[in-house]
Amino acid sequence: MPAPALIALDWGTSNLRASLLDAGGSDIETRSAPGGVMAVQGGRFAEALLALCGDWILRFDCPLIASGMVGSRQGWKEAPYLACPAGLAEAARQLTTVTIDAATGRQLHIAPGLQCTDPAGLFDVMRGEETQIWGARLPDGTTCVLPGTHSKWAWLGGAGVIRTFRTFMTGELFGLLTQHGILGRLMVFGRHRPEDFVAGVRLGLQGHAALSHTVFAARTAGLMGRVAPEGLPDYLSGILIGGEIGAAAASLEASQRAAGVVLIGDDDLCQRYALALEVHGIASRRAPAGTTTSGQWRIAGAGGLVAST
Amino acid sequence: MPAPALIALDWGTSNLRASLLDAGGSDIETRSAPGGVMAVQGGRFAEALLALCGDWILRFDCPLIASGMVGSRQGWKEAPYLACPAGLAEAARQLTTVTIDAATGRQLHIAPGLQCTDPAGLFDVMRGEETQIWGARLPDGTTCVLPGTHSKWAWLGGAGVIRTFRTFMTGELFGLLTQHGILGRLMVFGRHRPEDFVAGVRLGLQGHAALSHTVFAARTAGLMGRVAPEGLPDYLSGILIGGEIGAAAASLEASQRAAGVVLIGDDDLCQRYALALEVHGIASRRAPAGTTTSGQWRIAGAGGLVAST
Repeated sequence: MPAPALIALDWGTSNLRASLLDAGGSDIETRSAPGGVMAVQGGRFAEALLALCGDWILRFDCPLIASGMVGSRQGWKEAPYLACPAGLAEAARQLTTVTIDAATGRQLHIAPGLQCTDPAGLFDVMRGEETQIWGARLPDGTTCVLPGTHSKWAWLGGAGVIRTFRTFMTGELFGLLTQHGILGRLMVFGRHRPEDFVAGVRLGLQGHAALSHTVFAARTAGLMGRVAPEGLPDYLSGILIGGEIGAAAASLEASQRAAGVVLIGDDDLCQRYALALEVHGIASRRAPAGTTTSGQWRIAGAGGLVAST
Repeated sequence: MPAPALIALDWGTSNLRASLLDAGGSDIETRSAPGGVMAVQGGRFAEALLALCGDWILRFDCPLIASGMVGSRQGWKEAPYLACPAGLAEAARQLTTVTIDAATGRQLHIAPGLQCTDPAGLFDVMRGEETQIWGARLPDGTTCVLPGTHSKWAWLGGAGVIRTFRTFMTGELFGLLTQHGILGRLMVFGRHRPEDFVAGVRLGLQGHAALSHTVFAARTAGLMGRVAPEGLPDYLSGILIGGEIGAAAASLEASQRAAGVVLIGDDDLCQRYALALEVHGIASRRAPAGTTTSGQWRIAGAGGLVAST
């Protein structure tokens, strides 16, 4: 086994993933547990960490770094937001440190989240996605899209600097409307119906300026028999993703639009977004997988925790 | 007691309200029960009705009329949607009849809901609100707004005809986001903070074209300490109502905008909407209360069930 150089933790709301990295930043071993921030009771973050990879911490005298909601107010310790524009160097200078074990003094470094302010003075925040973006090593000026519960659109400057970004609550709205709302009552889940998804995307693109009206189409199309119950989940998904793309694309400059976007995230969601972007005439390409670990490696390098590669 | 002329039922998703009306259409007595369509098990609608006002039905040989979700697919019997433009005469010609009691043959007439199609071919539906609108006896050309779980904007032609309308899921979104979503986690409920409501309205008006982004401000404003936890519910309410008004007002002609709108609904919601409309420079006035019963009386009159007044 190569000598371990870093323990990197992707510690989000629902899951805790740990990677043991070698001196080249490659995975030696990875582990995960459902010990996300919301699952940790009474502030017992150290216990959750030791349960997953206490053996690594004992055996290997290497630094530990974490990113994600573990640095939020509900997490282990609040890692203050770093204001955009911000790059790897700024993030590395603003690591927040917690002591894992008082006896040994062993520490965990938590990467900051990012904040930005739009021209109207509106705040936005991200925590974890910045690490994925840095891990993707994208060209200057890239527009990147990270689909998810809270989908993020981020705009890069030069040298990996994140200039600004915008959050869309697309995934959360889909979950709320289908699981707890009236739209879900007409739906049959579990099938993928691409043609209904595309019809929804077209509607969302066209109707994003009245989204709380447009989503009601996922009820009326069902009532009127225009979309089958099995197609309604994809139809609503299309409306919401189309609505997000319509709104976000409206602020793209012509050159950004022509350059297309980079998608970072899981396969199913990225495929949906790629299709929806295509409907709107925007090209997309996928970032390689594993960008979180790669981003943590780069932050640790910029902060002198590991020798940069 | 004046001679009863009509039993009018406002039978919605959550509640069943019954009014006994005299020959002038005035209330003799009203009753209500939580026996809404969703609370009736196994299709026992007749039982729910008899439990609330079986004595009226037995004692008074007068017709019965109902409007609302009782005519939906989940209701007693589906009363097919009437296509807009539609007025009282068309509604009266399309009453759906159910037999309450096979032995006596006593019947209940259910008013149809309305459907319309927007220029893009998108359907919309309402069930119950059309009766409130007709009950308000509004001037030709009125724009009316019925705030609620599914807020409705309706445009009248001449002679009480409803030309077209649009649904906004504003109230449902507020409920879902605050009760089941992440935005509710930072909120303290129970206080009214008008200044936070107005700040939200301004944001919603300005950001309605990216609503799934704009609502995220109800999280970031809390995280950044710009809005107190006690103000966040009103801030989100303002964003959603402002977003609705921004989207709906964009399609108003100058003359409609100048004429203002009529608000129909409960006091608290109508006051919120009046304030939000004022922020957008749109005047509003309230319709008198009790418009559902008045509308049912007018439909019954147009259908020859009672002598018109």
